[in-house]
Amino acid sequence: MAAQPKDLSHHLSVESASRKQSPLKAVALSKSSRNIKIISLAGGLPNPEYFPIREMDAEIPAINSWKKDSSNSGKLDTVSVPMSSSDSDVLPLSVALQYGQGSGAALLSQFLKEHTRIIHNPPYEGWNIIMTTGNTSCLDIALRMLTNRGDSILVEKYSFPSALQSMRPLGLSCIPIDMDQFGFLPESMDDILTNWDATSYGSPKPHVLYTIPTGQNPTGSTLSVERRKQIYTLAQKHDIIILEDEPYYYLQMDAYEGKPEAADKAFTNEQFVKELIPSFLSMDVDGRVIRMDSLSKVVAPGSRVGWFTAQPLFIERGLRAAETATQSASGISQGILYAMFKHWGQDGYLEWLKHIRYSYTLRRNYLLYAMDTYLPKSVCSYIPPVAGMFIWFEVDKSRYIHADKNESIPEIESKIHAEAVEEGVNLACGNWFVVDPRVNDKIFFRVTFAHAELEEFNVAIERFAGVLKNNFKC
Amino acid sequence: MAAQPKDLSHHLSVESASRKQSPLKAVALSKSSRNIKIISLAGGLPNPEYFPIREMDAEIPAINSWKKDSSNSGKLDTVSVPMSSSDSDVLPLSVALQYGQGSGAALLSQFLKEHTRIIHNPPYEGWNIIMTTGNTSCLDIALRMLTNRGDSILVEKYSFPSALQSMRPLGLSCIPIDMDQFGFLPESMDDILTNWDATSYGSPKPHVLYTIPTGQNPTGSTLSVERRKQIYTLAQKHDIIILEDEPYYYLQMDAYEGKPEAADKAFTNEQFVKELIPSFLSMDVDGRVIRMDSLSKVVAPGSRVGWFTAQPLFIERGLRAAETATQSASGISQGILYAMFKHWGQDGYLEWLKHIRYSYTLRRNYLLYAMDTYLPKSVCSYIPPVAGMFIWFEVDKSRYIHADKNESIPEIESKIHAEAVEEGVNLACGNWFVVDPRVNDKIFFRVTFAHAELEEFNVAIERFAGVLKNNFKC
Repeated sequence: MAAQPKDLSHHLSVESASRKQSPLKAVALSKSSRNIKIISLAGGLPNPEYFPIREMDAEIPAINSWKKDSSNSGKLDTVSVPMSSSDSDVLPLSVALQYGQGSGAALLSQFLKEHTRIIHNPPYEGWNIIMTTGNTSCLDIALRMLTNRGDSILVEKYSFPSALQSMRPLGLSCIPIDMDQFGFLPESMDDILTNWDATSYGSPKPHVLYTIPTGQNPTGSTLSVERRKQIYTLAQKHDIIILEDEPYYYLQMDAYEGKPEAADKAFTNEQFVKELIPSFLSMDVDGRVIRMDSLSKVVAPGSRVGWFTAQPLFIERGLRAAETATQSASGISQGILYAMFKHWGQDGYLEWLKHIRYSYTLRRNYLLYAMDTYLPKSVCSYIPPVAGMFIWFEVDKSRYIHADKNESIPEIESKIHAEAVEEGVNLACGNWFVVDPRVNDKIFFRVTFAHAELEEFNVAIERFAGVLKNNFKC
Repeated sequence: MAAQPKDLSHHLSVESASRKQSPLKAVALSKSSRNIKIISLAGGLPNPEYFPIREMDAEIPAINSWKKDSSNSGKLDTVSVPMSSSDSDVLPLSVALQYGQGSGAALLSQFLKEHTRIIHNPPYEGWNIIMTTGNTSCLDIALRMLTNRGDSILVEKYSFPSALQSMRPLGLSCIPIDMDQFGFLPESMDDILTNWDATSYGSPKPHVLYTIPTGQNPTGSTLSVERRKQIYTLAQKHDIIILEDEPYYYLQMDAYEGKPEAADKAFTNEQFVKELIPSFLSMDVDGRVIRMDSLSKVVAPGSRVGWFTAQPLFIERGLRAAETATQSASGISQGILYAMFKHWGQDGYLEWLKHIRYSYTLRRNYLLYAMDTYLPKSVCSYIPPVAGMFIWFEVDKSRYIHADKNESIPEIESKIHAEAVEEGVNLACGNWFVVDPRVNDKIFFRVTFAHAELEEFNVAIERFAGVLKNNFKC
């Protein structure tokens, strides 16, 4: 039998610890002991007769319509969201368009919770999820729940700029953990925490780690199972809460084999789930992981529905925060998404995720092949990623032909970037992702295979190669 | 010619002043001086081919279908959101489902800005709007933009509990301004600010006022034009930023005439707009008003789309906050809403708002008539509201038959509430809305005419009258 999670309430921020429930939310559940329908004149909920959307429909791909050899190939199905329904497994507009609980509509929440159980099955009792208005909001809520102004937070040495922009205005110092090509180093994390000197850092020892373990942004690296276990053990040793930010989790891939093509692996849903790298959540016996899931990379960014999974303490405090920060995710989104998920079912959704996995594998292979073909090998180096949507590559600074100009790394990167844009290719500069600019001594660029058309990859990389050849001894 | 707004940057919080734009957002706009299409390998935007929603449709009421005497009476129209479109006035799914600007999709934003101009026409140059994930998020963003932990904020003596729950965990002291039946008192505001003693209050003089000017929650009161002008002048005198929270603005009504019916006034859109009480925004020559608008009461709470209107400084800082707090409103919501608004046009939307106005007037009249009929006049007193969805009424404490028990106001209200629920009617207790419990010496209840069916009003109020008669000398 699974154990109870640890009491980790000492991690709550002043803001979070002081949150209270609105009396109006609680009172909506009032019941009479008599057999009588309660007429509510309590909460200011508009009568659904004033909702001007009376039905919604969406065209979605039929299950396996994405497979060329399927009898459903190319087929679209229509799913409907009716105004009202007496079926308990329908989320009607009269509910979806109304004020809802901060945790999201029950039916969609149940679907996402069951999905989370299938994939991660957290090893303690009482875990739950809260739906949010997306991963961005998850992070804002989690940071405000756990940190006070003046705290420090552990992050990967290169990290997602918007996450850093969420942290710094809250008064947090971002402490970079060293990385190699396979993600961040447990030894570096242990070293920082073991030798923390609150006086010289000007803040108490960090108690929160923010990480993108799979297909990390920007480096594309994925932490191995062994590292994950070491890191979790370190989190226990140093009493750290792990914010596991996993938008790219389902974009896991087979190893790159040097070809601009990919096999559409005919594996079962069970095999697909089994091959996914174990998450921190799946090994979280203490309840010290807050996992943030997103639909942005696997359904659509515009859905603005994400969720976080955690132990009851963080769920309850997170719910109080969500109620006053965002109220709830869009009911229009939730209505359409639930209709789609219900139509597909858990298995149909896993089929879709396999399709996404295959599509990104193909895209990665195309982009890597273009890089292998066009980039000058004498100055560019990179590791083929096995997850995510990014390839991170170093450009050898020692071969820069204008070294006499004494430019900084950001200056060189900006100059190369401007020339690349002028030649018709946009990409991201390494310095945008550097947590501590004082220790930035290598030139990096990040390219993504998520967006451009496949036939554009060669053109884009050839253009960039030309820019490099003008600036580096190749 | 309208003037420039004042420089009010000294009002920004530490958090807000330190926000920076993500470099990735800026670089998406990179352009080449050559006549060349830029292939972007920069931002991690999924290719729209992976968005599983290929088209959305919604059934919405045809313009004036809500009028019994219209040729469109009862008619529904279908509006569609296609996957892609070359029309510049269509918001397609390929855009709506993608990552967007924090300010919202341009077309919907333009519609709401034009609507704001028609209604309020702010009297300075450069005002703008940002779409948010709803009014709740507007308030969270505004509070974090303007206040630091330890600050005080002016609020109405009775106020919206969720707003107070947004403020207090941020470390704000809520300073109640005295009210009468017509809203809060300018003299009380001036008195507090003129005599502010930072030492005894333990915080600097407030520089932010939070108010619900129209159909205030919970009191239903509406500030007169004269009071609004006085308050704006006081805001200038004491250098106050006004957070104008206006979810009930369009629920303005003619005076109650003692009848459970209402005339569906055949007035033009121009007359409708002209009769709306002037907002603080409409008199904001300095740019010191942040107006928060909501679709929750006039379209649907589940839309989770709101917007705030302010001068450029607050728009730019608010955008930086929205990007890291919520990213943007749901694109699925925005797609459906824009299709509806485009179909209706500005004039059609005003027709809809007149319908909402009429419907709420009818509901208010029904509920007031039920109250006039059933509530014991010797203990209950109330003022018919001219806006909003709430009626606030006092129950004379001096007639409480258990006065010897020495119960507090909240204890009496809770007891009455529990008995009411047991009898099958739910309503809200006055003490839930009290900002300073130390000065709570009157019994109040709040009822809403927004939700229940018209034929339930009599039953509900009769039940509550019975509870009062058991507890008060009537």
